[in-house]
Amino acid sequence: MFDSLIIGGGPAGLSACLNLQIRNKSFKFFSGTEKTTGLMKAPQIDNYLGLQGISGTELLNNFKKHVNEMGIEIFKDKVTNIIGMGGYFAVNSNNEFYEAKTIIIGTGHAKANYFLGEKEYLGKGVGYCATCDGPLYKNKPITIISENEEGEEESVFLSQICSEVYYIPLYNSEMKSNSKIKIIKDKPMEIVGDGDKVISLKLKNQEIKTEAVFIIRNVIPVSQLLEGIELEDGSIKVNRHMETSINGVFACGDCTGKPYQISKAVGEGSIAALSAVKFLDKSIKR
Amino acid sequence: MFDSLIIGGGPAGLSACLNLQIRNKSFKFFSGTEKTTGLMKAPQIDNYLGLQGISGTELLNNFKKHVNEMGIEIFKDKVTNIIGMGGYFAVNSNNEFYEAKTIIIGTGHAKANYFLGEKEYLGKGVGYCATCDGPLYKNKPITIISENEEGEEESVFLSQICSEVYYIPLYNSEMKSNSKIKIIKDKPMEIVGDGDKVISLKLKNQEIKTEAVFIIRNVIPVSQLLEGIELEDGSIKVNRHMETSINGVFACGDCTGKPYQISKAVGEGSIAALSAVKFLDKSIKR
Repeated sequence: MFDSLIIGGGPAGLSACLNLQIRNKSFKFFSGTEKTTGLMKAPQIDNYLGLQGISGTELLNNFKKHVNEMGIEIFKDKVTNIIGMGGYFAVNSNNEFYEAKTIIIGTGHAKANYFLGEKEYLGKGVGYCATCDGPLYKNKPITIISENEEGEEESVFLSQICSEVYYIPLYNSEMKSNSKIKIIKDKPMEIVGDGDKVISLKLKNQEIKTEAVFIIRNVIPVSQLLEGIELEDGSIKVNRHMETSINGVFACGDCTGKPYQISKAVGEGSIAALSAVKFLDKSIKR
Repeated sequence: MFDSLIIGGGPAGLSACLNLQIRNKSFKFFSGTEKTTGLMKAPQIDNYLGLQGISGTELLNNFKKHVNEMGIEIFKDKVTNIIGMGGYFAVNSNNEFYEAKTIIIGTGHAKANYFLGEKEYLGKGVGYCATCDGPLYKNKPITIISENEEGEEESVFLSQICSEVYYIPLYNSEMKSNSKIKIIKDKPMEIVGDGDKVISLKLKNQEIKTEAVFIIRNVIPVSQLLEGIELEDGSIKVNRHMETSINGVFACGDCTGKPYQISKAVGEGSIAALSAVKFLDKSIKR
């Protein structure tokens, strides 16, 4: 059982783990797979006080170097799900579970563009972890919509269980269709159901019969990461202590809303970590 | 008329002016006289992301260098008073007035230790600007309590107007008594009045008859700097946009409350500046 799990490898998460380390708390830091962000593309940043005229990539490397030199390990695994267990949390990453007393979310700005029908049929055929839920659809046709290559592995895995796997890559995929996996390069429009469960997926140019639709996104929308967390204008609702609507869960950086600024993310990361420390120390006293 | 006046030369104010400069707003940046702060004494700071193992003085010098290199002038004058003018603000510094559409306060952590009776008799004999209000007490005995040498000049000025000036230095003063100025090295305990106005000052070892008490502090408590601003636990009350209870006034850093962290101050400085920019741009549109 960790004191804290930090989710998100940007400035907010990096700042949070720095402060937990200094306060001697046990934690695991999930940065997620590296991807090119807006920050990394910035040619020159002038408003992070103390480091003038630095490029986004240099700045981020500087941040990571600082964290590494403090002896903190960065895990590139992606967290797919956070589950409240009543008094502690379980986190699913790469099909392994980790437990912690507190959670710090710093997953960046990710407004979800949900597909039509997605929310309605969530848990009724719509899911986000193909390998977790796939076996429920033995000998049945299923669909995977994926924003990245992760989905390819999952489709191979499920092709051994399900009758048919439709794979819809939303990126430049070189995967080829075979007897069990059908690659469809088309735009998903609507997940259709009969009221109880998913029955088909409408694409721009066709409709396919499917009993399940698994969606793999680059950045997981917060409301999907942790069910029931309160949002405000699509961002995680926090107070000035970076407390979310869920006791023991803190958030920081772009995921808490505008302005999308490095210094805001770094500052909020510190506050979130120190609020988590306070929360942990209070529970020791009880 | 400036777009903004920034008050306070710590990390919060420095970060705020950086962002105003980048956004092409006109402003004047009052850092106040340099004094040794807790930050400057810190031998090693490890939790300002990107600059590891730096001393407090080095960090602050780094910050100032960044601001200087962006072409921003730092004025070491102290602001003694902010006055709301209905739609804009007037700021008093060194007996000169400056006007601006917005104010950003980053004056640091300064909980006021008020003297007994101070609040009760504010404006009824108690004041903070001896040279402003002193002439009201022509040929009457007045008292100046001062935390620094500024008070010496004021006592000389008032000794030409008032019947008697009691000067109570709360620092190591080398000033000597003369026929009009009486130096008292004693601890002020209570400002005493008759219900309507000040009549005397109780010190630890004596009581003196005085019709006015002027108090000069190193750091001016916020509630004194800007009357009517809403506080919470002694700090300036702000929302997540760093807006205070007064329209057009923003606050950032330690003056907005705990945790007292550099990264929090820097982040809040950015947010306050960007909120001020938004406020200014909105008023242009109107």
